This record gives sequence, structure tokens and C-alpha cells, in this order.
Amino acid sequence: MNSPVLPRDDSSSRPAIEIADPTTPHVSVLDLGVTRGDGIFETIMVTRGDAPAIDAHLARFASSAALLDLPEPDPAVWREAVALAMSSHPTVDVLAVKLVLTRGVEGTGVPTAWALAMPTKDFSADRETGIRVVALDRGYRHDVAQTSPWLLQGAKTLSYAINSAALREAGRRGADDVIFTSSDGFVLEAPTASVLLRHGDRILTPPTEHGILHGTTQRRAFEFFAARGYVTRALPVTRIDLERADAVWLASSIRQAVPVVELDGRPLQHDLELTRALNAHLSLRDRD
Amino acid sequence: MNSPVLPRDDSSSRPAIEIADPTTPHVSVLDLGVTRGDGIFETIMVTRGDAPAIDAHLARFASSAALLDLPEPDPAVWREAVALAMSSHPTVDVLAVKLVLTRGVEGTGVPTAWALAMPTKDFSADRETGIRVVALDRGYRHDVAQTSPWLLQGAKTLSYAINSAALREAGRRGADDVIFTSSDGFVLEAPTASVLLRHGDRILTPPTEHGILHGTTQRRAFEFFAARGYVTRALPVTRIDLERADAVWLASSIRQAVPVVELDGRPLQHDLELTRALNAHLSLRDRD
Repeated sequence: MNSPVLPRDDSSSRPAIEIADPTTPHVSVLDLGVTRGDGIFETIMVTRGDAPAIDAHLARFASSAALLDLPEPDPAVWREAVALAMSSHPTVDVLAVKLVLTRGVEGTGVPTAWALAMPTKDFSADRETGIRVVALDRGYRHDVAQTSPWLLQGAKTLSYAINSAALREAGRRGADDVIFTSSDGFVLEAPTASVLLRHGDRILTPPTEHGILHGTTQRRAFEFFAARGYVTRALPVTRIDLERADAVWLASSIRQAVPVVELDGRPLQHDLELTRALNAHLSLRDRD
Repeated sequence: MNSPVLPRDDSSSRPAIEIADPTTPHVSVLDLGVTRGDGIFETIMVTRGDAPAIDAHLARFASSAALLDLPEPDPAVWREAVALAMSSHPTVDVLAVKLVLTRGVEGTGVPTAWALAMPTKDFSADRETGIRVVALDRGYRHDVAQTSPWLLQGAKTLSYAINSAALREAGRRGADDVIFTSSDGFVLEAPTASVLLRHGDRILTPPTEHGILHGTTQRRAFEFFAARGYVTRALPVTRIDLERADAVWLASSIRQAVPVVELDGRPLQHDLELTRALNAHLSLRDRD
């Protein structure tokens, strides 16, 4: 079902890309990607053979690599890997292509890299009926990305155990997802999505200075809202801003924009028509 | 050189343990251990065929599994795996056996597990001459293990990218290692070691309630000090306590106790004879 493509990136010369069978093992038990979660990833949505946000994903991949002192990914090689992964996979409506770059087998200094194409779950019900969310403390102040860059806030790393643990905690509390807050009370992001909210004609998202990922889908959503006359801003967001919002969404590549209809058991307002129009936009290739 | 042993732990029945060649890949690109750093590990020191702290390591392994909602590791299976890894490896003075348990290939619900035996670096020079350390902010308050258990503080997870990033930051500052401090000023632990300090006849270490690992080597060091008439206590430790200490050590299974001779560029006191006696004790099998 899956088609991985494994570019062996030795970053000294143009690496060869080879197709591999994802049902057999490809990662060494000595790879720092598995022994230390020491690597980065991106998940790119492909619809009808197009990857509308690939530029933004490759830019963020490069930014994550820089934060982890990994060699700069060559966009040409990764584009080729994504194209090969797409073309090797049987045609489906929506495909996810995951890019992974690890620090490689310990002691070799040679990174390990692959792209993996896989079919996605169908999230259309979430987009229509919305999801229930709990707010959980992310433990960090909003400014740690500036004060303590070794905490890697803003990088999309393979060290995601906390995100998985937070999602399990949400499940225990009867919710579907999480919105992380900083230890000093700011709304940050979800474990795998950006937070967007509408107040009247203003669309807000927390700023990347608060140690969160620059959301590729959030950026495309802002284009949609700006074209419709909304004022779009990255500004500090508090919990009260969520509670008083006219709509709150979690935005990510594959699930797209899902309305948050409940926060910690209390209903939030939502707007089904606007959500539908937004998701129609997110499925399209950027006009450029 | 290495000998891994891969017990396929399906936790419903006693898993079969098989010997595998670590130079070939064994981990799937779909394994949550690599895609999310979602798993746990322990590194056990073996000297002269003995694993003196195996009980403490298996206890901590079980505690990490519980914090991550992973199935409880069967100590009998893991003992067998460690013994097999030890006996399959050519005899060396000091061997490290690494135990890994991941959440397994996504969607299967079947964990992946292996034990890997490998020779260790020679840390005798560090034990004699000591190491230079920088203090770095760990970003969390000292009490997050109690307030926010989904942050997994106190679990030894595969999501170690921050530890690696902190060690690179130490290198940039001309140091060898890191002592993490909480955002509210308490000394926590090193990326891969516990912190011990001596004030006169008292030996102190930060308490596990501060969201740090229960150090297996720290515990064995306390036995040594207690037998010599020192008062041993787990108590909150501040930076000033480090600066005023008669000795500071980082304690871990393989490197054992290394004296910290410099903190942020300023010299700390150390005691070579006491360090030598402590390390002689740590190499011995527990008398029980």
C-alpha cells in the first residue's frame, strides 16, 4: 500500500534515490532517528497528483534542519523524491507524503533520509461535525524559543512522544485533540496542527515567536481569509480569546481545517459554511 | 561488533527471542519509535560478564513504560534478552546493553523490542581529569511531573532530541556536558546522567519529584557514601549549592561518576581520591 523512496543523503554529492518496499525494515537499530528521536519530518498533502503546499513544507524542513544542526536538505532532491513517491503510489484522492531526515547511524556522520507515500484517513466527518479539544499545559514559557533554542521549539522533530502522550490524555478526558498552552497562559498550537480563530472580521493565530511551528496550512488559510476581506494577524492568544471566538479551527496538512466545537467540555461557536469554503480552498493548488 | 537480540514482544504470549545482525536494518519506517520517538530505553553496564544494576534498570524500564502507557515489560523476558546479548558478544572489559521498547508499527498495536550489546567508549580519562559543564535551562518548572504528567518528565523516552541539542550547545560554549536547571531555578539532571554533590559529610542529589530520572548509578553511589558514613539525601539543589560544593559529579551507568571541574567557565572543587573509590565501587556487583 505504501511507497517509500529512500534518498541516501550523504550531503557531499547528489544522493541516489531508490524505491524501496516499506513492508520490510529499512532503519538500523543504531540510527539516531530511533535511538534519540534525533531528526526532523514533514507531512505533505497530495490531492489529484498535486502537492499544493510543497514549497512551504520544504522551507520549514530546511528551517527544522537548521535548528537541529542537520545538513541543509537539497530541495531539488526532495522534490524528486516526493514526485517519485507520488508516481509510485496507486492513485488515490488524497495521499500523504512524509519526509524524514535523521542524524543517521551513530558515529557515521551520514544522515538517513526517506520519503514515504501513504493513503490518508478520511477526515471529512471531523471537518463537518468538528472535534472536542482539551487545553493542556505545554510546560514552557511563551518565550523559550528565544531564551533557550536548544529546546528546539519551532522545529518539527522526531521527538514527538509528548505530543502522543498529550493526545492519550485528551482521550482519557473524552476529547479528540489538544490545544497546548504555555506555562504563562498563552495559546500555542495543537500536537499536529495550528490554532486559528475568528473574532468578527479578524482571523488570528498565535505568533511563531511563541515557540510554535509556522503552520503551512495556517498560512494558506490566511490567504483564503484575506481574499474574503478578513484582517489576518499573528498575535498573542489567550484562553479567553478562544472562549469568546466566533470560530476556532485546528489547521493541518492532511486533516485540513477542523472546527473546534468544545473546549474542556464547554461548547464553542462554529460556522459550518465558512469551514466548508475554507477547506475547498485548502484542497486547491496555489495560484502562482 | 554489536549483537542485538530482538524479542518480538506482543505482550499476549511469551515472545520468542531471536539473535539478529545489527549491521542490517531491523526497524520499519512505519515504527512509532522512529516516526514519533514514541518508546523507551535503558542502557545497562556489563563488567566482567555481570550486569550489577540490572534490577534497578528493569524497574525504571517498567516505570517508563507505565508513564507512556506501554505494555508492562516482562522482566524474565528482558533478563533472558540481556543474558543472550551478553553471551553473544565477544568478551570485553565493559559492555553496554541497550534495551528498547517502542509502540511498534503504527496501527498494529504490537510493540517493537530489542536489546543491543555494544562495546563502550573508554571514559577513564573523564573520570580522572573531570569534565567542564554548562548550566542550561530545561524550560520546565520543577513541579511539572506532578502538574502535567503528559510531559513525560521522569520517563526515559526515545524523544531525546533536546538532550542532543543541549550537548551540541555545550560544545559551542567549549564545554563537555550540561546540567539542566528548571525554569524556576532548581538543578535537575544532565542529559544522560544524574547530578551528585558533596557538602562536607552530606551527599545530595535533586529529588525525583523535580521531574528527573531515578538514577540507577546515583542510587549505587549513595550506597557507597552511606557505607562510608556520609549522610545521603535527595533534596532541592540550586546553582549556588553547586558553586559552593566540595565536589560535584555526573553519575551514569557507562561513564560512571565523573567529576565536574568547571561550571560555566568557573572552576569547581573536586576530590580525585574519593572519585576513584566511588568508581571502584560502581564497577562491582551489588552484594545482595
